[in-house]
Formats: sequence, structure tokens, C-alpha cells
Amino acid sequence: MKHYAKPLNNLISELSKLPGIGGKTAQRLAFHILSQEDKDALALADAIMQAKKNMRYCSICGNLTDIDPCSICNDSTRDHSVICVVESPRDVSAMERIKEFHGLYHVLHGSISPMDGIGPDDINLKQLIIRLQNTDVNEVILATNPNIEGEATAMYTARLIKPSGIKVTRIAHGVPVGGDLEYADEITLSKAMEGRREL
Amino acid sequence: MKHYAKPLNNLISELSKLPGIGGKTAQRLAFHILSQEDKDALALADAIMQAKKNMRYCSICGNLTDIDPCSICNDSTRDHSVICVVESPRDVSAMERIKEFHGLYHVLHGSISPMDGIGPDDINLKQLIIRLQNTDVNEVILATNPNIEGEATAMYTARLIKPSGIKVTRIAHGVPVGGDLEYADEITLSKAMEGRREL
Repeated sequence: MKHYAKPLNNLISELSKLPGIGGKTAQRLAFHILSQEDKDALALADAIMQAKKNMRYCSICGNLTDIDPCSICNDSTRDHSVICVVESPRDVSAMERIKEFHGLYHVLHGSISPMDGIGPDDINLKQLIIRLQNTDVNEVILATNPNIEGEATAMYTARLIKPSGIKVTRIAHGVPVGGDLEYADEITLSKAMEGRREL
Repeated sequence: MKHYAKPLNNLISELSKLPGIGGKTAQRLAFHILSQEDKDALALADAIMQAKKNMRYCSICGNLTDIDPCSICNDSTRDHSVICVVESPRDVSAMERIKEFHGLYHVLHGSISPMDGIGPDDINLKQLIIRLQNTDVNEVILATNPNIEGEATAMYTARLIKPSGIKVTRIAHGVPVGGDLEYADEITLSKAMEGRREL
């Protein structure tokens, strides 16, 4: 890309550092940004700086927030006796979308993955245990991802919490709604059978 | 996306205005930016502002540049008697990559497209005619895109230049190198036959 002037080259190289953005896409984005009105391009630059400046992790639940404690932890209308444990702030957003859970969250920021050298101390787990000691929580719902790392994290977390007598539950595994039984993998199907309920 | 705090929501909405970036991708990019080191995220914001501030169009050829006239127009080692007409600065970069053309460029910033309401006056064409009057250019190569708009633009431009006696050429159409004859469309194939050369 040496055929472009330096500021443009620099913009292309910064954009191509973003995940999923290759050289060609970065070029296309850069040209788009240059063709925009000044104020639109600067709005993007400003949004990056403002987000970087104002967003932090909630000191209670670890969710991304601009105020601390976050609006969910601060909300007295929510059920403070249930905590849903998720891996990332994006999972909080996914949960909030279903509009059925009104408890609190705890964001682990990852999952236990010995293969990647991530142990229990590398995720926001200790904070959860401390948090449980000082509150009257009576249920912890483990909503980590349904993959090997998520399962391991759920198992480990459950074992840590059990001695305190707090009820620990795991979200159900099964065939996704709208899916096709034919295309469900064996493990999902066997979990779906295992978790069957009387109608 | 109302489940995110305002600065994050704002960043996601700004990112999703970029071409080819949908809501999900914008979310992923925003979380990536937030997870980056401060200096890396600010480098992106800065690159946008610097590019926007320093990049302009060359007053001679219309290419994107940070100095005016651009480094190509300013280069006395290049052949100032040949001008290659292209649609966009990206085409200049494509041409420069082949390292075989050592003349100058003229960037039209678009092509004539009556369907989209873009006429000859809406692209950088008048500037080309003025430019040809004051220089000793002896060939203009029309390298607009090989599609309907590009062809129409080439035809129109050729007709404008012809009266001045300057030689006007069009890049060759044919089957792309490395391509498969079987998959070439009829028009390309007929152009390839038409343009055949004795070996």
C-alpha cells in the first residue's frame, strides 16, 4: 500500500488491526471515511475516544458501564437474590434481550481454559465468591457458554459455591428452537433427551 | 442495543455506519476497541482525524494526497507526456502496483451514469480537458472500469479529446490471466477474440 500518502496508509493500517478487517476491507473503509463529511468522520474518532475514556468495568458485577456501580447493580427494582454468571458483557446484553431475567449478573471476562493457560485466577471468579459472602443471594445461575471451556468453568464455579449452601443452577442444554432435529449434533441431542420434561 | 451504556452504544452506532459493517460486526469491533490498550484505540481515532485533516485531492490530477501537487505529478522522472485516466484513487494504486506505467494520472472520481443522475459535469472531466490544453501530452489512456458506466465514460472522454489531435487509447478487454475460458462471459470472450494479436 505504499502508493498511498502517509496519513491514508496509516489509517488503513490502523483499521486493518481490527478483528475480521483485512487489507482490502481496511482500504474500502478508509476511502469511505475520507469521502465522508468532516463531522461524520470526526464523530467516529470521537466515539472511539469517548467510549475508551468513559467505559469501565462495574466494580460489583464486572459488566461494562459508564457509571459505577452499573445501572443493573444499582437498580433496586431488580431481584438482588439471583445472580446470573456469564462470560462476557455481550452475554449480559443477550440475556437482557429476552426480557425475562430480572436478577443481577456477574461477568467472568473469560472462561477457564487450561489449553490457553487461563486458570480460575485469570477470570473474575474470586470477586464472585467475595460478593456471595456479603449478600443474601439464594440462587446462582451459571450461564457460561455451552462449550468445553464454559462447561469446565460452570463445574468449577459450582464446586466453589456449593459449600456456602447457595443453590447453583446451570442453563438447559437442548435443541435450539426453530432448529432442525436432523442437523442437531449427537451431544446436543443426547442432552435434550436427558433434560426432557413431562408435559 | 439499549442494554449497553451510552458511550458504547454510540461507538457501535458510529461503527455500523461504515460500509459493510452491520450491527453484529460493529458490536464485535466496539468490544475489541474497548479491550485494547488505551494507546492502540487512540491510535485509531488519531489516524482517522489525521487522515481527514491532511488528505486532500491533488489540484492537478485529482488523486488523494497529503501534499499538493501529489508526489506523482511532482515526479520529474515520470513521463509527463502520457496521462492515464482512472475512476478512483484506488485505481491509481492498482496501476502503480503493476510497476509498468510511468506516466501521470487523472482521477475522475466516478463515471458517467445517467441512471444515477451522474453526468459529465459531475465528475472531474472538465479539469482533464483544461489540463490537456496547457501541456504537451501526446497520449491519453482511458482506464475506466470495464462496465457500462466505465465504457460510456471512456467513449465520451475520447470524443471530447479527439478534436485536439491527442492520441486516445483504451485498455484492452479480454480473458483475465489465470482465468478459465469456460467461465468467461460471452462479451468478454468476444472482446478477447476481437482484440486477438498475431504471435
